[in-house]
Amino acid sequence: MPSYKPLPKQFTEGRLSKPMSDLLCTYNEGPRLVWELKHLSTIIQVDRAHIVMLARQGYMTPTQAGAILAELDDIRAAGPQNFTPAPGYGSMVLQVEKVLAERLGDDIAGRLPIARSRLDQGATVRRLVDKDNLLAVLEQLLRLQETLLAAAAKQAQTPFLSYTHMQQAQPTTYGHYLLAFSARLDDTFQQLTQVYHRIDRSPLGAVGLSGTTLNTDRDLTAWLLGFSDVLDNSRLGRDAYYQIELVFALTMAMTLLNDLCCDLHVWSSVEFGTVELDDSLCSTSSVFPHKKNPYALETVKSKAGEAQGWVVSALSLFRNEGSGDTNGRNVGFVDETCTTVCNMMRLTSDIIEGTTVKEARCEELLANAWVTTNRLGNVLLTGHHLDYRSAHSVVGRLVKNCLDREITRANVTIEMLQDAVAEMAMEPLAMTQKELTAALSHTEFISSSISHGSIGPQQVERLLVKATRQHYKSVSWMEETMRCLKVSEGELDAATEELRRAPTP
Amino acid sequence: MPSYKPLPKQFTEGRLSKPMSDLLCTYNEGPRLVWELKHLSTIIQVDRAHIVMLARQGYMTPTQAGAILAELDDIRAAGPQNFTPAPGYGSMVLQVEKVLAERLGDDIAGRLPIARSRLDQGATVRRLVDKDNLLAVLEQLLRLQETLLAAAAKQAQTPFLSYTHMQQAQPTTYGHYLLAFSARLDDTFQQLTQVYHRIDRSPLGAVGLSGTTLNTDRDLTAWLLGFSDVLDNSRLGRDAYYQIELVFALTMAMTLLNDLCCDLHVWSSVEFGTVELDDSLCSTSSVFPHKKNPYALETVKSKAGEAQGWVVSALSLFRNEGSGDTNGRNVGFVDETCTTVCNMMRLTSDIIEGTTVKEARCEELLANAWVTTNRLGNVLLTGHHLDYRSAHSVVGRLVKNCLDREITRANVTIEMLQDAVAEMAMEPLAMTQKELTAALSHTEFISSSISHGSIGPQQVERLLVKATRQHYKSVSWMEETMRCLKVSEGELDAATEELRRAPTP
Amino acid sequence: MPSYKPLPKQFTEGRLSKPMSDLLCTYNEGPRLVWELKHLSTIIQVDRAHIVMLARQGYMTPTQAGAILAELDDIRAAGPQNFTPAPGYGSMVLQVEKVLAERLGDDIAGRLPIARSRLDQGATVRRLVDKDNLLAVLEQLLRLQETLLAAAAKQAQTPFLSYTHMQQAQPTTYGHYLLAFSARLDDTFQQLTQVYHRIDRSPLGAVGLSGTTLNTDRDLTAWLLGFSDVLDNSRLGRDAYYQIELVFALTMAMTLLNDLCCDLHVWSSVEFGTVELDDSLCSTSSVFPHKKNPYALETVKSKAGEAQGWVVSALSLFRNEGSGDTNGRNVGFVDETCTTVCNMMRLTSDIIEGTTVKEARCEELLANAWVTTNRLGNVLLTGHHLDYRSAHSVVGRLVKNCLDREITRANVTIEMLQDAVAEMAMEPLAMTQKELTAALSHTEFISSSISHGSIGPQQVERLLVKATRQHYKSVSWMEETMRCLKVSEGELDAATEELRRAPTP
Amino acid sequence: MPSYKPLPKQFTEGRLSKPMSDLLCTYNEGPRLVWELKHLSTIIQVDRAHIVMLARQGYMTPTQAGAILAELDDIRAAGPQNFTPAPGYGSMVLQVEKVLAERLGDDIAGRLPIARSRLDQGATVRRLVDKDNLLAVLEQLLRLQETLLAAAAKQAQTPFLSYTHMQQAQPTTYGHYLLAFSARLDDTFQQLTQVYHRIDRSPLGAVGLSGTTLNTDRDLTAWLLGFSDVLDNSRLGRDAYYQIELVFALTMAMTLLNDLCCDLHVWSSVEFGTVELDDSLCSTSSVFPHKKNPYALETVKSKAGEAQGWVVSALSLFRNEGSGDTNGRNVGFVDETCTTVCNMMRLTSDIIEGTTVKEARCEELLANAWVTTNRLGNVLLTGHHLDYRSAHSVVGRLVKNCLDREITRANVTIEMLQDAVAEMAMEPLAMTQKELTAALSHTEFISSSISHGSIGPQQVERLLVKATRQHYKSVSWMEETMRCLKVSEGELDAATEELRRAPTP
Repeated sequence: MPSYKPLPKQFTEGRLSKPMSDLLCTYNEGPRLVWELKHLSTIIQVDRAHIVMLARQGYMTPTQAGAILAELDDIRAAGPQNFTPAPGYGSMVLQVEKVLAERLGDDIAGRLPIARSRLDQGATVRRLVDKDNLLAVLEQLLRLQETLLAAAAKQAQTPFLSYTHMQQAQPTTYGHYLLAFSARLDDTFQQLTQVYHRIDRSPLGAVGLSGTTLNTDRDLTAWLLGFSDVLDNSRLGRDAYYQIELVFALTMAMTLLNDLCCDLHVWSSVEFGTVELDDSLCSTSSVFPHKKNPYALETVKSKAGEAQGWVVSALSLFRNEGSGDTNGRNVGFVDETCTTVCNMMRLTSDIIEGTTVKEARCEELLANAWVTTNRLGNVLLTGHHLDYRSAHSVVGRLVKNCLDREITRANVTIEMLQDAVAEMAMEPLAMTQKELTAALSHTEFISSSISHGSIGPQQVERLLVKATRQHYKSVSWMEETMRCLKVSEGELDAATEELRRAPTP
Repeated sequence: MPSYKPLPKQFTEGRLSKPMSDLLCTYNEGPRLVWELKHLSTIIQVDRAHIVMLARQGYMTPTQAGAILAELDDIRAAGPQNFTPAPGYGSMVLQVEKVLAERLGDDIAGRLPIARSRLDQGATVRRLVDKDNLLAVLEQLLRLQETLLAAAAKQAQTPFLSYTHMQQAQPTTYGHYLLAFSARLDDTFQQLTQVYHRIDRSPLGAVGLSGTTLNTDRDLTAWLLGFSDVLDNSRLGRDAYYQIELVFALTMAMTLLNDLCCDLHVWSSVEFGTVELDDSLCSTSSVFPHKKNPYALETVKSKAGEAQGWVVSALSLFRNEGSGDTNGRNVGFVDETCTTVCNMMRLTSDIIEGTTVKEARCEELLANAWVTTNRLGNVLLTGHHLDYRSAHSVVGRLVKNCLDREITRANVTIEMLQDAVAEMAMEPLAMTQKELTAALSHTEFISSSISHGSIGPQQVERLLVKATRQHYKSVSWMEETMRCLKVSEGELDAATEELRRAPTP
Repeated sequence: MPSYKPLPKQFTEGRLSKPMSDLLCTYNEGPRLVWELKHLSTIIQVDRAHIVMLARQGYMTPTQAGAILAELDDIRAAGPQNFTPAPGYGSMVLQVEKVLAERLGDDIAGRLPIARSRLDQGATVRRLVDKDNLLAVLEQLLRLQETLLAAAAKQAQTPFLSYTHMQQAQPTTYGHYLLAFSARLDDTFQQLTQVYHRIDRSPLGAVGLSGTTLNTDRDLTAWLLGFSDVLDNSRLGRDAYYQIELVFALTMAMTLLNDLCCDLHVWSSVEFGTVELDDSLCSTSSVFPHKKNPYALETVKSKAGEAQGWVVSALSLFRNEGSGDTNGRNVGFVDETCTTVCNMMRLTSDIIEGTTVKEARCEELLANAWVTTNRLGNVLLTGHHLDYRSAHSVVGRLVKNCLDREITRANVTIEMLQDAVAEMAMEPLAMTQKELTAALSHTEFISSSISHGSIGPQQVERLLVKATRQHYKSVSWMEETMRCLKVSEGELDAATEELRRAPTP
Repeated sequence: MPSYKPLPKQFTEGRLSKPMSDLLCTYNEGPRLVWELKHLSTIIQVDRAHIVMLARQGYMTPTQAGAILAELDDIRAAGPQNFTPAPGYGSMVLQVEKVLAERLGDDIAGRLPIARSRLDQGATVRRLVDKDNLLAVLEQLLRLQETLLAAAAKQAQTPFLSYTHMQQAQPTTYGHYLLAFSARLDDTFQQLTQVYHRIDRSPLGAVGLSGTTLNTDRDLTAWLLGFSDVLDNSRLGRDAYYQIELVFALTMAMTLLNDLCCDLHVWSSVEFGTVELDDSLCSTSSVFPHKKNPYALETVKSKAGEAQGWVVSALSLFRNEGSGDTNGRNVGFVDETCTTVCNMMRLTSDIIEGTTVKEARCEELLANAWVTTNRLGNVLLTGHHLDYRSAHSVVGRLVKNCLDREITRANVTIEMLQDAVAEMAMEPLAMTQKELTAALSHTEFISSSISHGSIGPQQVERLLVKATRQHYKSVSWMEETMRCLKVSEGELDAATEELRRAPTP
């Protein structure tokens, strides 16, 4: 076997005449190294799977593999805080290789880069990290949904107002309102898991864009790293356009939180006053002592505002000089976006729990609001033989007359209705005051709503059951996914253990 | 049965003292009516399904239903060009109702709005239109994929260059390059169909945000209109946040087209000169007679640039005062975006077909490019017992020496390699010139690539088969989806036919 | 003089073997031609200035110039509706040249393209159109400001509520509120005119990116076309990155309108009820007869939502393959954005005029709101020797006690204040009920506010005077700018008139 | 004077029953405090100016003012590293007040919040910080421009290629190319200083949204803090919509850097090969030893990609529930964007200095490229009496014939030209080979370009002088602005010094 020269201090020396400038190290290598150090454990995991594969395919002896694996386990155990990257030496894959070369000599350490490139190695690490990030988001999402469902169950029949065009529209219940967000969270969960599946493909072994002439086993490394599939076409190994999709799905999640917090923000105003936030989620003013400012809502809304830019940054990073301009095609801030979404979901859970419906105020508003006119129309239609459009005209006239005379809904009399009928040139109705009052009552409206998905007690109960069932289905998906990752991890541990037990030469 | 007053000239008269201002009509009602007129047929389809349901649930007699259905069929047959909306009268649902009232009287016409509101009616129309739009996009996507696959098959082994950091990286084949885009199109297809499934839920019968006290059958209307499911929680009936997701998926599709056209744009430059576009896709300059400007590529790229703003507009429309601010929560420009994506996919198909690889130029570039050094390293590793890092050093030094002396790859001799070995203080290699030439050859690199997903002939063949199979799977999804829509349409036609045959009273 | 061949049917024939494909014509040339036809008159204006310059510099005889000018005047007079572009013949500059060649022969018509290229000709037209577009926006902006100032003057002292964190903060006046928007419009005006100055430079005669060897006079054409300056470096002639800035400034204008309409939207809710929109700016619901939906506000807000995407589309068009990728560096939708902004400013003017402050409701809210506590603190500080923080504590305790006992501000007694003082372990205050009532009064708060820019009558009056003065300054800028354009137009007319009077040979 | 209770541990205790939750502290107060601590010195500067004003207006005795000022100077001298915020106590204004209260008692410390609120205090700090941030950007911008001008001067006549549609268009010089970026930097400088002027208005003393009944002097504090003007309408004090404009102007600056780096990226490819980056700005590949990857360019381009999202995040933060939703109307990440832009401008300066034009390669490309055909046309026009269109046809035919026969420009003979003339049915030209060669020469093209702003030596020299003059004008603006800030700082120091010398009571 020929002797070998030690690895140059900087492997770039072979090709380049100067080291990287300080400025470029600061803005390019620096941030990248910080990110990689944070994910050192994942980087080593990828190395371990690669070594197992190389050993099985005969590109390393078990003894060589065992020696490298032992050192890698040491490095991982010591943790990022004990790993000092050599300045200007490049990315972690080279930094780790340098340590291995110092400890084991190039003869052994130099076998690690066989049949892989930084392109596919880096892409594999990134996908593993992004999968972890995404699972953390899904976990918080399910906790938020749990909170929503508990609150919805408790307030399933609490009367509340719904709005269209920012105008009072119909009675609703607070539980029905919250269930709509649980349903939207199902969509978000679905979106995120669909992105997860598109991430869940191993680029390891793509080797650049074209592959290699060596006899590798990409299925094996994919399996050992817990990927569901291999990213087939080697040209796509490096490409991370799935990150745009991921960032977008996270933005959509923030949009949902924003909708919820916007509603509560408006409803927390003195003028609406239909909900109140727990004091622990508010602050007051330094000069206006009467203020109770719902800071928690504003915190979520602000982050949701920032989130709108994420997807544009991501899209723009990929808008470049085409697929040959690889370096920019990578979203550097995915970790932060995932962390932000996790945090805001946690805060929103607290908000849901810390929100009280002001029932008396709701009652006051509902009693006077013209939110049940549609039902009166239905009663005229089904019980009094009016066609719908005539019924609508009569009710419209009744409302107009009352508004003109500043009579609220609570004070409508059967005479007023008959007047409206007369004004519309129809024959008097055979209706009693009691019937009219019931027809206009918001509590009757709620209790008698029977259409599919409506606010009636049976429907809300059904929606609640359905939502809970869907929630548990999602929980199962999480558990199953985690279990699979665990199994692969175990397989990899076993395989490396076996190699480490190989006899030293 | 009581008599009834004719429907007021403008139904708003009941509640409002003045008609809508001209300016507001121009900017609000106007554009909306144009859109609705364009989709008159879909609006009537929704009416037809609603009537069948009302008749089955007893809110209309068969005779009444039949009378309305006959008029609706007339209106539909006459087409949008023969429907003149009454100015200031509001949206098409009211315009159609007005015509029915004029022809049939309020007694009958006035039954149509039973158990529905503009909120859910409009949302249903929008979802049906968006489904159609999306299917049109998917159809063009599959045609583009077909074109890509045909081109990939024809040029599976045409040598080409791949780039990272805009620098020559490895040999590849043009077919392998195109197959990467076919794989990405699979992802886009998946994304779009997943959005399709989230659209494919019927909001009809949600009636405002809270539902109704009438006994409706939402499953029936969903089925008759070809929806796969009912949008359950009535509060979500109106909400079109799926449109953000749709618009985003379309933007991602444009990103893919942009990548492809960017590559071809750079490669069409005189300096690269590795591809040439058909003259029919180019133009020349009015003052520089030598120019051949690849207009088609620029057209696609420009539209892709505009597309980046779509998702922001969509997200912003939903960033508002919360869920009570319903009116803004609606993306008005979905039709245009779908049309643009369809057109750009058609143009990209033409581009693929109209692009010639300049094989001689590729050969010239490949022969001189240092794109096979990785393989030489592998040969030293597997055939000459060097560890990988030592092999990398030797090759690195060889390249540096050649670059310094301006020797291109085609002219490397075994002596130069041995010099590099000596400089790295290793023992001479037992390698012949022939072996070296083969190790550095790009055609050998291509033919001997065997790793999964690589550019070798068997792998490209495998990728081609896999891509074709996936393509046909997508085609089947389309056919199945269209068939289901057809079946529902038939059911609806049969049901209305039956009602129209009801005896006139 | 040598004979000449007629201009080929399509000038591309010299260089390209095929005409442009139909698809490419449809998506590339088609929309461009529509735009150019719309601006035919501007295109001819540029031709006219160019001809005057060529004649003065000796590249045309006066007779040749006069002949072309006569034809151009004919074409302009006939208007776009009478100009039928030849299919596939390219942009308007070539279409016009073709017509001239048919009428005057190539010998004369062929002199028009001397010393210019489509690059600088097109850029000049675009800048002239964008200047016009921008002036139209500025005109509507000033009208909106006029409306705001009139409304502010009328309601300078109308008590109103201000909010922070969506909570009642302080009393204000409606006039003071509106004046803030007038001040913001000043900023928008400034932004837009600064963009105007960056547009207002003539690219004509840049000739490609590098210039020409001919002896041209770019200052002359700049002057004749009403530009303030020449765009110096010929490389920048084509570049339209100013359009990003223009589109952004328009988005900012829409942001301002959105803020105003959002406020009015929330305040129009039944719960706030502090303003009401004229019925002509609203609509009602087809099934909820009680609704009065403020459509006009929603129209503006929706357009403002869409506007957020404009700037991204514009930025993305310029994010490409660098400055050599000229074609995409151009925002095609500037006309539409300007039109939208003009329309929404008009609608907002109507909204301002059509909004009534519900004074009784404001009075009711103000009377009970804790919005004057800051002033009570000031009174304790200046009239009763408390330090500010102690005063703040006392007032804070007073408010807390009242909120706990559901006492509103209108019902606070001096005893309650003394209780709060005692609870904070301070000595009793020498204050009467009358003093207290005055200190807490919102009308007193308003009338005694004296700080610079505050809501006090003198300050609001001062702000009104200042705003009016600033408005007239802006009006003067407009008038001066229009006058200059008129002068240049006159000069160009005179110069062409002179050439047209040249004797025919 | 009455006694006073010590300030409650948390001033919110007066109004709220619970402290802020940990989660909310972490995500809301936490990041805010970190930012405020970083800018502690600016916060204290604002306090100092406010105290001077309060003392002059009689709301503090000189002794009280002197005592507070002494403590503030201590806190500032100790620096942020020695200031430990009390958890849950709120923003720095309250934290500082707490320290003062502990050291001086509430009697004195409690006078600081007189006539100001956190709203205007915070807004003042933010504007001062943003001014500093912006000045730092402007400083780097001017350094970048200096580098550009030096490089342009050195390579004013270095022949280079220009591109349109990514196709070779005309000869140019590298200096002319760089001067275009200097001119664009002037626009950016102008944009940024115009934003600076809109920031440069003092909100201090606005006191909430409505002002105060105390007799303050806002002009004085504005002057002492180095503001050019007072932000007049108190309602606008808090509003930071100027931050959207600032962020946008920074994005535009990044767009400019991106254009430059994109060009150099494409030109650094082996295929173009017209420029080369210094090795210190590049890296190589771990497995492809031949690669020299231009990392510095990619670093700038990536940051420019991210920058596209900034403006959307900023716009979205202001798209909310209207002006009452104050808290979100604030861009939290302005510091980071300014730092990024500074860093990327520094890196771009290094790039300009580290870029070598490969003159031999440019010569090779230019010699063969059809980039001077426009000039040949001009020669036929001015020297051989052809009209322009005929000249264009002849030259077009000549080029086509040569391309068909693969003859490059360097090998064109006069016979070929005469053939083209004959094919176009014109009479032979009286032109010699020497004349033709000169007419087609790119060096002659450059040296004889005389139009305003063209690439000719005199024009480039003129552009260089003009650019240098403009650069020094900008430098003067900076110096003048810094001088004014210095003067105000001196005035404030003097005023506080005087108060600190007041006798202790």
